[in-house]
Amino acid sequence: MNTETSQKPATTGFPFDHIRPHLDQVESLILEQAREFDPGVENYIAYLCGSSGKRIRPSLTVLTAGALGEVSADQVKLGCVLELIHIASLVHDDLMDGANTRRGLATASAKWGDTLSVLLGDSLFSHSLMLATELNDVHLSREVAKASREVCEGEILQTQRRFDLTLSIPEYFHIIELKTAALFGASAELSAYLAKAPESTQAAMRSYGRKLGTVYQLYDDCLDLVGDPDEAGKTLRTDLEKGKLTLPILHLIRSASPAQRDKLGRILLEREPLDLGILAGIADYEGALEAAVKQGHELLKESRSDLICLPENSSTEALHDIVSYLGGLLDGCLR
Amino acid sequence: MNTETSQKPATTGFPFDHIRPHLDQVESLILEQAREFDPGVENYIAYLCGSSGKRIRPSLTVLTAGALGEVSADQVKLGCVLELIHIASLVHDDLMDGANTRRGLATASAKWGDTLSVLLGDSLFSHSLMLATELNDVHLSREVAKASREVCEGEILQTQRRFDLTLSIPEYFHIIELKTAALFGASAELSAYLAKAPESTQAAMRSYGRKLGTVYQLYDDCLDLVGDPDEAGKTLRTDLEKGKLTLPILHLIRSASPAQRDKLGRILLEREPLDLGILAGIADYEGALEAAVKQGHELLKESRSDLICLPENSSTEALHDIVSYLGGLLDGCLR
Repeated sequence: MNTETSQKPATTGFPFDHIRPHLDQVESLILEQAREFDPGVENYIAYLCGSSGKRIRPSLTVLTAGALGEVSADQVKLGCVLELIHIASLVHDDLMDGANTRRGLATASAKWGDTLSVLLGDSLFSHSLMLATELNDVHLSREVAKASREVCEGEILQTQRRFDLTLSIPEYFHIIELKTAALFGASAELSAYLAKAPESTQAAMRSYGRKLGTVYQLYDDCLDLVGDPDEAGKTLRTDLEKGKLTLPILHLIRSASPAQRDKLGRILLEREPLDLGILAGIADYEGALEAAVKQGHELLKESRSDLICLPENSSTEALHDIVSYLGGLLDGCLR
Repeated sequence: MNTETSQKPATTGFPFDHIRPHLDQVESLILEQAREFDPGVENYIAYLCGSSGKRIRPSLTVLTAGALGEVSADQVKLGCVLELIHIASLVHDDLMDGANTRRGLATASAKWGDTLSVLLGDSLFSHSLMLATELNDVHLSREVAKASREVCEGEILQTQRRFDLTLSIPEYFHIIELKTAALFGASAELSAYLAKAPESTQAAMRSYGRKLGTVYQLYDDCLDLVGDPDEAGKTLRTDLEKGKLTLPILHLIRSASPAQRDKLGRILLEREPLDLGILAGIADYEGALEAAVKQGHELLKESRSDLICLPENSSTEALHDIVSYLGGLLDGCLR
């Protein structure tokens, strides 16, 4: 696909502009963290924290804060903590995936090798959890550490089930709930906790965040199959090569006849040089991509009902806008 | 060296027997942790936690507790937390070193590969810091996370300075203070904090723990050069192959003539097949090993004075015994 004529929404550009000042505070805080490390380590951390991502997790934290009142310094710090955990997990992801670039920049493993990447990720994980203690609330420290552990557990389960064609769709959702939804859920829930919102509101925001995270991962999985690498700003078509079975492929396996399932098995397991464009075409033709996108839309619809507990204001509106935006991204996966 | 006729002290067997019941509690708690993970992850964690190490860090925690009063459940938990951080760091160490066995068992990376080892270490780090929050004290959570970060920072600095013959002896000590002494220091200091000991006592126990950790690493470094692999229960002679410059080697470099320094450079940098037995012999002959051991003894002497603040009892005595024991281990490195 030619990027210039593409009608697909870009993968960046979540509708966060009206909270830009608070996101800038998060960004400054993220950039300041490098100075907390030993001078011999500082520059590595500055590089890792400086490669600006989409900052989705802090955006959820700040928008939840804004929806429930004024955005506090603690909520800004929470956003920073959760983004650092995300960055740490990306350092290790890139190492394990053998990825050379992310967001157009060389990955830690490409730049400094595997050993330093392991250790830099570890340092960032530990530092995030240390920074979380500055919120002076044991409950927050615990929930942040728990979300961090869940991210790793999700990755472990995903690794275990590589090339496993018996992976069920509920198992797929369990994995991405740990891997991605946990941190999204914590971003919204713990911000509501800091706003001293009622427990029911905290639970609703957790549910909203988790659904959003699930759909975001589901979208990312679809994008890997059908997206344009130039547009996405990263290497695509890697999930299947690494044996990660994504939702459209799981739907395709489920709807396949025995003969088709054999063919899929040969393609996916025997690691024949894959023409993923063809596989994507089949997934589209058989309605498997559509089934995956439909599940995403169902989750998004549910996530809107989680927002009912919030007062009407521009931040609440933006939380709804994220839902619409993700819906648009999902639709963009259908050719 | 024939292990049967060896006169060297064994590397296990620290003098902890009188606190065995509390160490058993730590051990049970460590083994219980696997059940806190996702069922798909539990068995890996059980394997990693089950391969009984020397449990030195929890021993320091429990002995400090015993020296200052009754050993509490929180102090037992603290010991478990710090040991889990140690185990997490070993999982990543073994991965980075390409080590196949530890304590006679296959390492995680040998058993399950690099990807799972990265993730299992990450999960254990996060879990340790989550468990720390059960102590319901933000100060403790922060100090534990900080010690965890310092371990990683020390490893990063060590990795950076591999094969760097300009590494100074103070820089060597800075690295091992982060890599090993931080966690030893936290084990004793935070136990004193939990015992509500005066701040001066907490500081003294931190100093004691850090010195002990420094000497323990220094001993481990000497052992790598002169030890017997069968006796040590792990692969030795790996530090120099990996470019880690240990204290005896740094003393040897410092005392070498320009011509000798060239020879050492060729041996250490050009990675000629090393006869480390010969290098160890030279280090011994030139007094470099003795100089390293002497620095260890000086630190041990200082560490005894940190214990003056403690009441006289069997645990305080055991803390002194550890000092003597480490002294014996150091002397065992001199042939």
